[in-house]
Amino acid sequence: MDIKPKVSIVMGSTSDLPVMKEAADFLKSVGIPIEIQALSAHRVPEDVLQFAKSAVDRGIKVIIAGAGGAAHLPGVIAAMTPLPVIGVPIKSSNSIDGWDSILSILQMPSGIPVATVALNGAKNAGILALQIIAIGDVSLMEKMRLFKQDLAAKVRKANEELQMM
Amino acid sequence: MDIKPKVSIVMGSTSDLPVMKEAADFLKSVGIPIEIQALSAHRVPEDVLQFAKSAVDRGIKVIIAGAGGAAHLPGVIAAMTPLPVIGVPIKSSNSIDGWDSILSILQMPSGIPVATVALNGAKNAGILALQIIAIGDVSLMEKMRLFKQDLAAKVRKANEELQMM
Amino acid sequence: MDIKPKVSIVMGSTSDLPVMKEAADFLKSVGIPIEIQALSAHRVPEDVLQFAKSAVDRGIKVIIAGAGGAAHLPGVIAAMTPLPVIGVPIKSSNSIDGWDSILSILQMPSGIPVATVALNGAKNAGILALQIIAIGDVSLMEKMRLFKQDLAAKVRKANEELQMM
Amino acid sequence: MDIKPKVSIVMGSTSDLPVMKEAADFLKSVGIPIEIQALSAHRVPEDVLQFAKSAVDRGIKVIIAGAGGAAHLPGVIAAMTPLPVIGVPIKSSNSIDGWDSILSILQMPSGIPVATVALNGAKNAGILALQIIAIGDVSLMEKMRLFKQDLAAKVRKANEELQMM
Amino acid sequence: MDIKPKVSIVMGSTSDLPVMKEAADFLKSVGIPIEIQALSAHRVPEDVLQFAKSAVDRGIKVIIAGAGGAAHLPGVIAAMTPLPVIGVPIKSSNSIDGWDSILSILQMPSGIPVATVALNGAKNAGILALQIIAIGDVSLMEKMRLFKQDLAAKVRKANEELQMM
Amino acid sequence: MDIKPKVSIVMGSTSDLPVMKEAADFLKSVGIPIEIQALSAHRVPEDVLQFAKSAVDRGIKVIIAGAGGAAHLPGVIAAMTPLPVIGVPIKSSNSIDGWDSILSILQMPSGIPVATVALNGAKNAGILALQIIAIGDVSLMEKMRLFKQDLAAKVRKANEELQMM
Amino acid sequence: MDIKPKVSIVMGSTSDLPVMKEAADFLKSVGIPIEIQALSAHRVPEDVLQFAKSAVDRGIKVIIAGAGGAAHLPGVIAAMTPLPVIGVPIKSSNSIDGWDSILSILQMPSGIPVATVALNGAKNAGILALQIIAIGDVSLMEKMRLFKQDLAAKVRKANEELQMM
Amino acid sequence: MDIKPKVSIVMGSTSDLPVMKEAADFLKSVGIPIEIQALSAHRVPEDVLQFAKSAVDRGIKVIIAGAGGAAHLPGVIAAMTPLPVIGVPIKSSNSIDGWDSILSILQMPSGIPVATVALNGAKNAGILALQIIAIGDVSLMEKMRLFKQDLAAKVRKANEELQMM
Repeated sequence: MDIKPKVSIVMGSTSDLPVMKEAADFLKSVGIPIEIQALSAHRVPEDVLQFAKSAVDRGIKVIIAGAGGAAHLPGVIAAMTPLPVIGVPIKSSNSIDGWDSILSILQMPSGIPVATVALNGAKNAGILALQIIAIGDVSLMEKMRLFKQDLAAKVRKANEELQMM
Repeated sequence: MDIKPKVSIVMGSTSDLPVMKEAADFLKSVGIPIEIQALSAHRVPEDVLQFAKSAVDRGIKVIIAGAGGAAHLPGVIAAMTPLPVIGVPIKSSNSIDGWDSILSILQMPSGIPVATVALNGAKNAGILALQIIAIGDVSLMEKMRLFKQDLAAKVRKANEELQMM
Repeated sequence: MDIKPKVSIVMGSTSDLPVMKEAADFLKSVGIPIEIQALSAHRVPEDVLQFAKSAVDRGIKVIIAGAGGAAHLPGVIAAMTPLPVIGVPIKSSNSIDGWDSILSILQMPSGIPVATVALNGAKNAGILALQIIAIGDVSLMEKMRLFKQDLAAKVRKANEELQMM
Repeated sequence: MDIKPKVSIVMGSTSDLPVMKEAADFLKSVGIPIEIQALSAHRVPEDVLQFAKSAVDRGIKVIIAGAGGAAHLPGVIAAMTPLPVIGVPIKSSNSIDGWDSILSILQMPSGIPVATVALNGAKNAGILALQIIAIGDVSLMEKMRLFKQDLAAKVRKANEELQMM
Repeated sequence: MDIKPKVSIVMGSTSDLPVMKEAADFLKSVGIPIEIQALSAHRVPEDVLQFAKSAVDRGIKVIIAGAGGAAHLPGVIAAMTPLPVIGVPIKSSNSIDGWDSILSILQMPSGIPVATVALNGAKNAGILALQIIAIGDVSLMEKMRLFKQDLAAKVRKANEELQMM
Repeated sequence: MDIKPKVSIVMGSTSDLPVMKEAADFLKSVGIPIEIQALSAHRVPEDVLQFAKSAVDRGIKVIIAGAGGAAHLPGVIAAMTPLPVIGVPIKSSNSIDGWDSILSILQMPSGIPVATVALNGAKNAGILALQIIAIGDVSLMEKMRLFKQDLAAKVRKANEELQMM
Repeated sequence: MDIKPKVSIVMGSTSDLPVMKEAADFLKSVGIPIEIQALSAHRVPEDVLQFAKSAVDRGIKVIIAGAGGAAHLPGVIAAMTPLPVIGVPIKSSNSIDGWDSILSILQMPSGIPVATVALNGAKNAGILALQIIAIGDVSLMEKMRLFKQDLAAKVRKANEELQMM
Repeated sequence: MDIKPKVSIVMGSTSDLPVMKEAADFLKSVGIPIEIQALSAHRVPEDVLQFAKSAVDRGIKVIIAGAGGAAHLPGVIAAMTPLPVIGVPIKSSNSIDGWDSILSILQMPSGIPVATVALNGAKNAGILALQIIAIGDVSLMEKMRLFKQDLAAKVRKANEELQMM
């Protein structure tokens, strides 16, 4: 039984957990094993280095990193791993309405991409991680299709209820 | 010999070609077969639907979509495929310094992520596509590692030259 | 008796209803028959296609579409109908103070206009729909004039009360 | 033969003519008679009043108004006519990258909508005027459909040329 | 005894009264007679015209105008009077964090200035009106000096209390 | 013969002269005597103090101060004189598209207003100075009226030429 | 025993105390003697001049200045002392989400730097003051190292707790 | 003779040299020995780690780090050294008008300050470094005073020339 984590979810501070938990919850719901950590690029830079450099060998396929303010964590991790890194800008208490978080994750220089999702979009980060892993896994691709069908069904049901109002 | 395209590069207008070509050039340089198309979400919406819905069956693994202004193309494609979609905001002539392009690609609603890269960051979109495909392909992962080593070597060389000035 | 809807009001999510209801209420108050639907450009793209392509034949004259965040719904509908489409940017919970909603509705490319109103300006969208229909209907034009007179009267009354304070 | 103008195009300054001319050119190309004027809400306010109040009686159906900076012209006209007013924010030399033009046209108060199009989007303003008039004119609606088909055809041709490169 | 108003305070809506009252209160506190009115540039444009054109002859020296959103009132008044007009951008409920209010008041075209103060800065508008009238009135200039001395005294007292903490 | 300056024009750097000259030119054209100086709030703070504190006694009625970037000059002068101070935000080479200049002049704290005009709006600053002085001078008020009539005449002439095109 | 203050903390208003207190608390916690004052660049400009010019002679090594809105205090002090000045932009009630505070502190002209920290980042201002003083004091440098180790230890402990959840 | 560098100037890319050179030139002009390097936080992260961790022991007193876009270099260095780090946001070709560079340097989290200067303000970074070193060095403090006197003299001379025009 394979229970080694395939997706690693990291956040700059445990105060980011309420947002980042949505990525974890989604991935668990589709059966993808995860690990979750709070690692600050600024407070424990060497732990981040260690973490990022060992990720491939530990079997990680995708890293999801969330941070707020001058959000360097996703970019710093991307610098030290060949794996795809998904960045989640977080509207934390020290952020200027999220603009700093978005720009310091999105605007990475040529050579070191971070796959950025919407502000506080941790669930979408989880879905994107599933989509990435699913390109090599037919049963996960099927799960992704079902997830989209389920989304559509919910919208249609809500619309029907709206018609009846 | 497998020459079926694995990455599909689409752009909202052929005027985006100078930017988007960098994604194509990178992917060709690492031997990943691509296809490239100009498809407007607003001018040929049904062609886009057709394109997006058929992508999995045509063997595409990752879609890279670039657009400027009210840039709907990446999101509209993401709505109609289970594949990972990478969005490239483009600072086109009708864009407000790129802010419209960034926000209309990045801020996708829950359920439909677009992996957004930096403004005009088409090369990074190509690299990200490589990283995604490489998680299931040891030799591509090795290429990705070499690419990062090469980047580092160039920076070190430039620094040496700076020291000698 | 003509009760076929003339204006179609659509929104990206039922959570937009409190805003969009103001358009419906205004149009009902002036006797213009409407229909109202929740259709997501990203979650049920084919339903949106179906809706937009059939609108003219169903007798719809104007479409009002509201959405938040990366708000593609008005533009996607405008792509698929020759009818005038009024866009209402919504400051939803996943929006960055409304900037993303505004820019992804307003900044449509050449060829596919969306008539954008103010952030959360659904009532103004309803008024604009009346103005559009009224150009071919003398009695509606008269209603529009009365509406403006009524607005003026209210402002004058409030000013009189202010003078007495 | 009806040659009375149906659409009135006004601009805050003759320096806006290079942008606003695109609206005029489009409307002429589809055979809709227009008038065109330079009227400043700030320099000749009473002329604007006169113009706006007489528009309906002169047979105008839609007004297109473009302005830059603190762009009051579209809103001031909308205040004084029951006709639909389309606003074109212009990135003029005294504008802050167009943000002032956009916000002072778009953010109209409840009761007085302005149908705002993209920055410098005068051609889209012309198309929107056609769409508005076409809801009561089958042959114009057909012209609008043909315009959209033509747009699609151009995109498809450009894509074919891209494939051959 | 001169009780004719010298400063006219106008606002776009009575909902702006809590902000604009600060201008009135300050001017009353220094003995400058005022009038106060709610006049909307968009809902009662002809009343505004009437008001602005008659202001000089009624003995008004300075006009203070406050408005939010697409805030045209100060500029429209400035267009129709030779008097100095002070504009107060208001962060009203329909404003985008005040940016629209600021830009549509501040960015007036060449020829028609509006003396803009800070967002919600109605008290400063009152002080500026005093400063303007005081350039021709020695006793008011003295009041202005005393006001500044009083401000300084308050700051010094607060600082002394801070030292004792 | 009174040739003592009535308006003092100051700028943060002689590089601001091309913008600020427009204020000087306008005031000279209407016969108001001026003085003009380059004084930096940051480089010669005591000269600014000296200048501001002596202005009233030297017969100055209005001060116009222009600066770019972290533009403190207008506010610092306003702190040290009871006279009305007009601020001109300048889009200098070290400014971020003018936003820093605007905000650091406009957003003055309660008690110390600066009458802010549009970005680079030095001519409007000159006009505003005329309007302020004119409230106590019938012949200047007449000049102001003529100036506005002249503006209107130019717009009407341009419009006539447009009609003939 | 040396108890003369080495760091002077000033703020534009006592309402900034809740933010600025964090700088004071940090510096006290590492044993650096401070003084704290409320001095407004706009309300008591001459007190600020006096303060800034005497700082070196009173033995001050670093000045920390916080202010909101058009925040001139740090720059005005920097203009009048050769000491390093740390600026703290404050999101005060009269600030536009902090943008005005940031830009009017950060964007100082060439020749007069202000060492700007994050919005409301008074604690970081205290830490930076320690870092500056520590470059000439081995025991303070050691304190700084310990502070960083302590930060890292807290992050590691929080991460361990996260793992156990 | 002490020629060991006291200030270390680093930049994210050699393309930043034209900006960063101004810091080097200033420091050389006042006789402070420097070193200068191009080190990318994203391309050679371990070199940056090495550099930052060894800085104190190599006798460095202050680090100046400049970068553009998602500018992580100053923050990443600050994370790994107890020395004061001055950050220079650079408006590089991949930056969105400098906003990304500013926010990703300025908005550092609590515990890890970066002393940020104006966009492209490398000369001010050099001056700030001098101010920091000068607090423990009487002769450098004197140089700083002379520098400020020289600045003032230049402004006064320019003003005199302006008077003569």
